[in-house]
Amino acid sequence: MHFGVPAALFLTFQDAGLPPVTQSDAIWLWIALGVGALALIAAFILAKIVLSADTGTPDMQAISNAIREGAEAFLARQYKTIGILAVVLAVVVFFGYHASARTAPFALKTVISFLVGAVCSGLAGFTGMYVSIRANIRTASAARSSLNGALQAALRGGAVTGLVVVALSLLGVGCLFLFFGGLTDPTHVVYQLVGFGFGASLVALFAQLGGGIYTKAADVGADLVGKVEAGIPEDDPRNPAVIADLVGDNVGDCAGRGADIFESTAAENVGAMILGAALYPVFGIKGILFPLIVHAINLISSIIGVAMVKTTDTEDPMSALNRGFYVTSALALCGFAFAVYHMLNGVGVAPGWLLGCGVTGMVTAFLFVWITQYYTESKYRPVQSIAEASLTGPATNIISGLAVGMETPAMPVVVISAALLLSYYFGVKGLDGVTGIGNYAKGIYGTAIATMGMLSCAAYILAMDTFGPITDNAGGIIEMSNQPEAVRDKTDKLDSAGNTTKALTKGYAIGSASLAAFLLFSAYLEEIKAIVTARVTAAGSAGFMPAGWSFTNINLAEIPVFVGALLGAMLTYLFSSLAIKAVGRTAQMVVKDVRDQFRENPGIMAGTSKPDYARCVSIVTGAALKEMVLPGCLAVGLPVAVGLIFRNFSSVYGAASGTFSATGVSLVPTINGLPVNLGGASAVAGLLMVGTISGVLLAMLMNNGGGAWDNAKKWIESGVYGGKKSDAHKAAVVGDTVGDPFKDTAGPSLHVLIKLLATITLVLAPLFL
Amino acid sequence: MHFGVPAALFLTFQDAGLPPVTQSDAIWLWIALGVGALALIAAFILAKIVLSADTGTPDMQAISNAIREGAEAFLARQYKTIGILAVVLAVVVFFGYHASARTAPFALKTVISFLVGAVCSGLAGFTGMYVSIRANIRTASAARSSLNGALQAALRGGAVTGLVVVALSLLGVGCLFLFFGGLTDPTHVVYQLVGFGFGASLVALFAQLGGGIYTKAADVGADLVGKVEAGIPEDDPRNPAVIADLVGDNVGDCAGRGADIFESTAAENVGAMILGAALYPVFGIKGILFPLIVHAINLISSIIGVAMVKTTDTEDPMSALNRGFYVTSALALCGFAFAVYHMLNGVGVAPGWLLGCGVTGMVTAFLFVWITQYYTESKYRPVQSIAEASLTGPATNIISGLAVGMETPAMPVVVISAALLLSYYFGVKGLDGVTGIGNYAKGIYGTAIATMGMLSCAAYILAMDTFGPITDNAGGIIEMSNQPEAVRDKTDKLDSAGNTTKALTKGYAIGSASLAAFLLFSAYLEEIKAIVTARVTAAGSAGFMPAGWSFTNINLAEIPVFVGALLGAMLTYLFSSLAIKAVGRTAQMVVKDVRDQFRENPGIMAGTSKPDYARCVSIVTGAALKEMVLPGCLAVGLPVAVGLIFRNFSSVYGAASGTFSATGVSLVPTINGLPVNLGGASAVAGLLMVGTISGVLLAMLMNNGGGAWDNAKKWIESGVYGGKKSDAHKAAVVGDTVGDPFKDTAGPSLHVLIKLLATITLVLAPLFL
Repeated sequence: MHFGVPAALFLTFQDAGLPPVTQSDAIWLWIALGVGALALIAAFILAKIVLSADTGTPDMQAISNAIREGAEAFLARQYKTIGILAVVLAVVVFFGYHASARTAPFALKTVISFLVGAVCSGLAGFTGMYVSIRANIRTASAARSSLNGALQAALRGGAVTGLVVVALSLLGVGCLFLFFGGLTDPTHVVYQLVGFGFGASLVALFAQLGGGIYTKAADVGADLVGKVEAGIPEDDPRNPAVIADLVGDNVGDCAGRGADIFESTAAENVGAMILGAALYPVFGIKGILFPLIVHAINLISSIIGVAMVKTTDTEDPMSALNRGFYVTSALALCGFAFAVYHMLNGVGVAPGWLLGCGVTGMVTAFLFVWITQYYTESKYRPVQSIAEASLTGPATNIISGLAVGMETPAMPVVVISAALLLSYYFGVKGLDGVTGIGNYAKGIYGTAIATMGMLSCAAYILAMDTFGPITDNAGGIIEMSNQPEAVRDKTDKLDSAGNTTKALTKGYAIGSASLAAFLLFSAYLEEIKAIVTARVTAAGSAGFMPAGWSFTNINLAEIPVFVGALLGAMLTYLFSSLAIKAVGRTAQMVVKDVRDQFRENPGIMAGTSKPDYARCVSIVTGAALKEMVLPGCLAVGLPVAVGLIFRNFSSVYGAASGTFSATGVSLVPTINGLPVNLGGASAVAGLLMVGTISGVLLAMLMNNGGGAWDNAKKWIESGVYGGKKSDAHKAAVVGDTVGDPFKDTAGPSLHVLIKLLATITLVLAPLFL
Repeated sequence: MHFGVPAALFLTFQDAGLPPVTQSDAIWLWIALGVGALALIAAFILAKIVLSADTGTPDMQAISNAIREGAEAFLARQYKTIGILAVVLAVVVFFGYHASARTAPFALKTVISFLVGAVCSGLAGFTGMYVSIRANIRTASAARSSLNGALQAALRGGAVTGLVVVALSLLGVGCLFLFFGGLTDPTHVVYQLVGFGFGASLVALFAQLGGGIYTKAADVGADLVGKVEAGIPEDDPRNPAVIADLVGDNVGDCAGRGADIFESTAAENVGAMILGAALYPVFGIKGILFPLIVHAINLISSIIGVAMVKTTDTEDPMSALNRGFYVTSALALCGFAFAVYHMLNGVGVAPGWLLGCGVTGMVTAFLFVWITQYYTESKYRPVQSIAEASLTGPATNIISGLAVGMETPAMPVVVISAALLLSYYFGVKGLDGVTGIGNYAKGIYGTAIATMGMLSCAAYILAMDTFGPITDNAGGIIEMSNQPEAVRDKTDKLDSAGNTTKALTKGYAIGSASLAAFLLFSAYLEEIKAIVTARVTAAGSAGFMPAGWSFTNINLAEIPVFVGALLGAMLTYLFSSLAIKAVGRTAQMVVKDVRDQFRENPGIMAGTSKPDYARCVSIVTGAALKEMVLPGCLAVGLPVAVGLIFRNFSSVYGAASGTFSATGVSLVPTINGLPVNLGGASAVAGLLMVGTISGVLLAMLMNNGGGAWDNAKKWIESGVYGGKKSDAHKAAVVGDTVGDPFKDTAGPSLHVLIKLLATITLVLAPLFL
């Protein structure tokens, strides 16, 4: 099943007489694919169970239907826009690869895996959303009888997203690997999967950007004109933007975060498989398949975890969700240990240390979630300090919130640094007895295992995350259909748990993004090395390859790398600025439409006629989709521009460290005596790495700052500092409004941007050389 | 005049039979020192002229005296605190150097130059301030007769600061060079000057932090309790914090920015001299003395520029100031060209290209100033968009301001990137015919010349900057002493010009900081190379030095460098957060004291008795000085900690790129067969470079965002969107208050932090190896 690509162009060490893949090892691929397929079936069954539940009163159905229609309309138009952009990019990639005879043979496979990645991501988003917007009404209806029923309906609805996302990522990568001939030529085929990650990233970027702009524009717009101008409460059915607001919860939090995690797992799968290929002499194909098996375990443990969750009417729903998470984590840890001992063994390997890497990743995930809680929950100092500052007005509230936001990266950075240093060290220790591989490759593989450990509960976490918008919507439906107080209490409880899970997932997402980033850099460096090796080898006697050469030198003291780094950091600021401004502009359109509706139809405010919800939904849909294009194109375009420009200027700016050794032997690969041009590849690496660092810190500032503002307001609403309607509360509302586009648009979009930078550089690497 | 340090420890290429310094070249040092001394005399004469002017009415004098006493009390206590910290650090450096026999011989000289740097910086700050707080009343008094008289009094008062700062920096570095034996052993002695830069940085950090916290705490505190609570106007003499507020303008803007520019020129002098030493074979000692001559030219052209400024009662004072700036720039350019053609010549050198580097730096300065204007003046889109957003309340004002702030780094980053690429290219071209030196060293020297070009008008710019607080104070004195409307109009005009110059100087300061940063990295790399070379040479036959080796490889793909980079970026966020929180806490103490005074003495509000200004000044002084210690120590401590920790872990994490060439020859310096441990030095380099990138971007966000908020408020006050007292204005006041600690505390402190990171690593480099 090999498509006949001239393998000479992608020669790696496997060709130096490496052993072929054994049948007993190949079984792991089939296991992974089998579990992926079973998980899809499980998701289907879960969806059936959820959808077969009672759908409440006609009043409730009317609202739910409006949300559903709005969300589906948005998704349909969004996917159309993304589809057009994806096809354009596919064409660009295809012809970009065809511009040089050296890359042309890979054009088709790269485009295929790009499109498969995009389609899988879109499919995962669509399925999850399909269930979520139907689970909300079932949750609302179940809340009329028991909290447990409502909790289970919401979590199972969320679990469909979690399972579908992880399973499709696993199946997508696994099937491409199989069909591209991975079982016969694994170390080459891994490089042909990079398109999958890029496809996933592209969809994720636009899904998160478009969804994020939509959700906050609708929210801010509805509040500005409803609460502030018209003086009606939140979720009041007279507000024409109220349905748009509820739709936003789905398209932003649910579809957006789903695409984000899909991208994470896809990029991590591909990156870890590339690094696994570098260790083929040690682990054989098992090292390449290991990440797929980790996600298979992830699926099994998450299904069991979700099934275990039940609660009583008096319990805090968060406790029940946490129980499920502990079960999932424990099972994932056992499964991880099993996989490490059965797959990552070989001569000189000490699997215990490698398991230590995985545990490091899991502990990192816990710490990130804990730190996020510390900064965003009202029982700790940061939120309380913002609430206190609200006493002296909005200005001090904002200053205090920004100061908290700027403080937030400190602890996570220390945790990530410790995780990198520890897992690198464990990796070196675990592979200490292996010969022929340097400490660097061993340590880097350790950090890759840590990333897999961190993502080993992704499906359950995503289920908890999607639980958030489902319960939020359920609460809105209960509110708008005027259900009794007791039912509202139940959905309020669930909603509060949902807010917590949403915040925690953001902490988890940025943690995994920053740890995965290092894995993806390493994959990029490995890929550059593979391409250079192939080209030099293809040049025959005109080429010279220094023994043991690898592309592991991203020298910040070289001008192109430094300029790339500057531009990468700048990109994260400019991108955030564009995203935030897009929310403002779109919100203004919402405000204008609501004002128009109130003026054109006075019966709305009188309660005698219904507002035109769909018109508002349609306006915000169109505006959000238009606004997502510019920042999206900037994110895609800048790394490409940097790579291509510095490829052509390399002769002036390259070679900071000498090119020849003391004995006059070339230290870098040469063709016809000229060093291989690495200027473009280096500048892009600088952009990627420093852009990631800057993006991670900015995202933490915005996510945690925004979350802290939100909860400072809620804390005051609970009665502190004068409670609702006090001056402190008014000041806190200002902070909350400022935090909204931070934490729900720009921050999450930055997570996605970071990974997009990594996957785009992986795909376009051949063009930078 | 050589102190007998064992030169073997600092061997560089000069010892390989380089020609000695010729008498005719040494003359340049004497010229530079002579001009420096003359500039001090000129400053003295200017001060005499300013101080001999009329000091107005007794009412005016009473206010001016209160400001003077407050400022002098703050400065005295601040320098005491800084003095203690400096002595502690001097002891730490001394014993740190003594911890190893290899660094012990340099302990004394390093400590001496550190203390000289600190004292010079302190002296420059004190002198500038001494004149400024006396020039304010003369300016106010002169405004009663003519605008020209007032303008000249304020500019000449400011020029004293400008001249003293640049002259003391020139004389300090020049004299140390001379006394350490620079005329006999120049290429070694330059490394013994690094302490000077660190001393300047240390004083600058605390001066800017303490002054910045003071100025904004007094401002915010006075406004909160005066304007908001008591309902009295700004600068009302009944407000006990009003004198503290006026004192703040001096200690923050005047002393703080003076220390900032002193640090810039000191660090740039030392860094450029180190790079000049690397080119000793080409230029001789002239390359080392070139930066001193550039500053001598800077002094002469600035004196002439200041003398040229005069205006009429009807002219916009900004035009007059600009004329002086154009004269200064033109003279500086001519002088620069003269210096390049007479000093930077030699076999194979094309001075025209090197002049191009200098012009690139000057153009970069212009562009930075222009971009700053674009983002902070009300005639352009950014400020207008913030004003418009104020119509929908404080939340949208803040969101819009933050979006503008995040957009601001984009253009400057492109300009800096272009400047680096161009000046590097020009440097390579200019030294193209020189043999024995690689392209990299040539290009880097080009970027150094660009930095010198950028700083070649520093004295005039600093004069314009100090003009700001002098006119601001003069306006306050006129306001508080109830002078006639016509006089107020004149000081208002001057004050408005002062606001503009202050904003522009901030743009200039961050631009020079970012360009100088690359120069300082390069000096650090050069220093590490010199130390390693000395150690390997000292090891005799046990040492092995690969031919042409240089420490120019800061590899971001190595874990210690990456972790250092993460921590460096994080430092800039945490530091900003601490600075902003310090302002909040100190402002609360101001609010409390003013409330206490109002309660204890009801006669204050009735106007029958005077408030106790000194008590408020004393409280804010104590609090600001206490608050500056933690962020300051963090800034000093983190790079040291990173360097020392990674020095000890280098064996695990080092050597990403192979250590041996294809033929088995070591590529890195070894002693007894073991590679020299570069882990600590590399991690610190990562921290330095990425910390600088992150700091530059954050500072731009805060400076320009803050400036834009400020001017959006002023634009509304001019009558747009309802003018003063409108809801839009209230919203804009919130934005202005948020922007205050951004633009006057955290942002400028970040400029200083960036350079401190560079100078501390230069001084402590020997400890990291």
